[in-house]
Amino acid sequence: MLKGNAIVGQSGGPTAAINATLSGVIRGCLSEIREGGCIEKLYGMKNGIEGFLEKRWVCLSEMFAREEDLRVLEQTPAAALGSCRKKLPDPALEGSKEFYEKVFGIFREENIRFFFYIGGNDSMDTVMKLSAYAKMCDYEIRVVGVPKTIDNDLVGTDHTPGFGSAAKYLAVTMQEIIRDCAVYTTRAVTVVECMGRDAGWLTASTAIPRAVGRPAPDLVYLPERAFDMEAFFAALEKKFEEKPNLVVAVSEGLEFADGTCVGAGQQSGAVDVFGHKYLSGTGKALEYAIKERFGCKVRSVELNLPQRCAAHILSDTDISESIAIGQKAAKSAAEGMSGGVVMLRRTEGEEYGYELCFEDVRNVANQTRFVPDEFINAEANDVTDACCAYLLPLIRGERELIWEDGVPKHVVIQ
Amino acid sequence: MLKGNAIVGQSGGPTAAINATLSGVIRGCLSEIREGGCIEKLYGMKNGIEGFLEKRWVCLSEMFAREEDLRVLEQTPAAALGSCRKKLPDPALEGSKEFYEKVFGIFREENIRFFFYIGGNDSMDTVMKLSAYAKMCDYEIRVVGVPKTIDNDLVGTDHTPGFGSAAKYLAVTMQEIIRDCAVYTTRAVTVVECMGRDAGWLTASTAIPRAVGRPAPDLVYLPERAFDMEAFFAALEKKFEEKPNLVVAVSEGLEFADGTCVGAGQQSGAVDVFGHKYLSGTGKALEYAIKERFGCKVRSVELNLPQRCAAHILSDTDISESIAIGQKAAKSAAEGMSGGVVMLRRTEGEEYGYELCFEDVRNVANQTRFVPDEFINAEANDVTDACCAYLLPLIRGERELIWEDGVPKHVVIQ
Repeated sequence: MLKGNAIVGQSGGPTAAINATLSGVIRGCLSEIREGGCIEKLYGMKNGIEGFLEKRWVCLSEMFAREEDLRVLEQTPAAALGSCRKKLPDPALEGSKEFYEKVFGIFREENIRFFFYIGGNDSMDTVMKLSAYAKMCDYEIRVVGVPKTIDNDLVGTDHTPGFGSAAKYLAVTMQEIIRDCAVYTTRAVTVVECMGRDAGWLTASTAIPRAVGRPAPDLVYLPERAFDMEAFFAALEKKFEEKPNLVVAVSEGLEFADGTCVGAGQQSGAVDVFGHKYLSGTGKALEYAIKERFGCKVRSVELNLPQRCAAHILSDTDISESIAIGQKAAKSAAEGMSGGVVMLRRTEGEEYGYELCFEDVRNVANQTRFVPDEFINAEANDVTDACCAYLLPLIRGERELIWEDGVPKHVVIQ
Repeated sequence: MLKGNAIVGQSGGPTAAINATLSGVIRGCLSEIREGGCIEKLYGMKNGIEGFLEKRWVCLSEMFAREEDLRVLEQTPAAALGSCRKKLPDPALEGSKEFYEKVFGIFREENIRFFFYIGGNDSMDTVMKLSAYAKMCDYEIRVVGVPKTIDNDLVGTDHTPGFGSAAKYLAVTMQEIIRDCAVYTTRAVTVVECMGRDAGWLTASTAIPRAVGRPAPDLVYLPERAFDMEAFFAALEKKFEEKPNLVVAVSEGLEFADGTCVGAGQQSGAVDVFGHKYLSGTGKALEYAIKERFGCKVRSVELNLPQRCAAHILSDTDISESIAIGQKAAKSAAEGMSGGVVMLRRTEGEEYGYELCFEDVRNVANQTRFVPDEFINAEANDVTDACCAYLLPLIRGERELIWEDGVPKHVVIQ
């Protein structure tokens, strides 16, 4: 039996659930360690592969021996181990050998036999390259990817850990914004800009509560469709016939049919006090456009960082799945799997359910999963009921938090 | 004994706690009604004084007879009755008579003897004018103001209902943003723009957890002090010596010593009916300035509407006080008080405590309570420990919410 140490890292943009996945990996490895299985110690690398190379490691199996600490880790937003955005060289290229020899030299030195990498698309690329090199150099190590991304754009999985909590934040915040905007009787438009450059999953989430008869934004624009300003104005005009207060959800990545970004708009010509030309985001650009066209009150709200770090409002479904997926990664590696990613497959039937499976990383890396056609309406200005019903189970359940002095407790790994 | 009907309205900007105060007024009036006291029915006016004049009323004492509905009302953000921004004419002016005769004609017609108005500074102005006119026209009506404002800038009270929940949102969100920004090792600045045109209470709240040893923004700039760009750059330079990731909290209302707004380039120039300028863009302006000076990664986050409507994260201290203050308003009116506002007075001693008092509205309307000198450091770039310790009790406690299908339940008053 292969016996040795394990190491785990986090990479890419932070999410509110990435530490729940880390906790799952720790829980899975602790089981192995306690049962005298193939894993001896679990290390954590700081700042992903960067910290791995510099040996900035901590011993997680010692640090998180207590259940309570794992619970706090599970409600701590952003990568507790720190992150990086390093893309690995292609192992087939001649010049890459030095890099990989350094990595595998460390593996040998520390008897690292299990390598877990939690991240999005770019991190799956890292998993793919490390496992390819492992085969080339004949060193036995099990490399497993553990997905996370609020963008939900990973191929091969029903949805990604981290997305459900971001979606819950967006659904709840949109309910609140709709209430806030409804208090006055004057004509007004509020444009809410959501994250998502290529895929519109997060923007679509603002409409989820419509599945249960709750209010939703009046218009929803995803980057999967070209944005047309005149069609947008016409849609607003029509909605104004029903009520004076309109709320519109838009993806940051909206583009016109010619491929230019809606947010690239220089149409305002405004400059700030320092004389800098004002580069507006998508929401701001639309705010100015609506103001000019309708002359009514317009506000744009860019939801920004809280979408990925608002760990005070976690989807219990998402956190439970994130932990399970981390545990499954540890278990799969212990059982001999390598070069793969743990994915969620939704089970058939009325009731929401899922199973975990192990997918070859080469089938999923470097691809983008878009919102499918049947989830976007014909006018390209809203999501369908099928979309809301599909996403609803992912925001269900509230994680019970441990609070201290008015704020949730967080873990800091020094 | 004066016997008649009561009416309540909400005015000014929404908060996450304004409906808890409304619930308090309803609870207080229901007690009177059930005990056969001086109040017969409690009406609610839609959209404040505007809906009052148009007789868009609902009967709240019938609508909220069930405890569960009051609980849901208490967790519903934004004014459930709708709001308005109407400034009443000066009752001493000749031309104002027609307006007031219309108002008092309705009072007589419907035997309205108790008038409650929940709002901020501008609403206290309404209370002052109505009670002044009541004396002039010899109609017995008890007019009571019930304060709310996330800005916490009302004179005569220790703090305002609604502020504690906004402060909790800000403190918690800042903890999350600090975690999020700490994951990379590269030099970066994140500027977080908070609401507050004149008073810096909300921006100060981002640092509250420092009182209990938690992280806080590296720099905090309040509108009580003139902003100096060179001093700001020097402060950043100094902080960079300690760590690469800096987080700065700034008030939307920051001004340079010459009185120009830091975000001046981004404002529309529009003013509301009270003459307030619409501001936005302080964070963006600083983002560009830092980028130019330091050439590092810079991001600005305008926290925007969620500051006043994020009812999914309520301070239990704030909500309990908001309810109590509404009940006290009803009780005070029943006992014969008029022309006043219910205020919070903090009790002496180690343990946080408060008592409610009835303050003459003329002493509080149209004034602004600023963050005092002892709460701002000498360099004008941070709040003091005394400030954090003072604000800490206001964010303590989490309101237990009623959830349904992944989002908190809300009340809609049709």
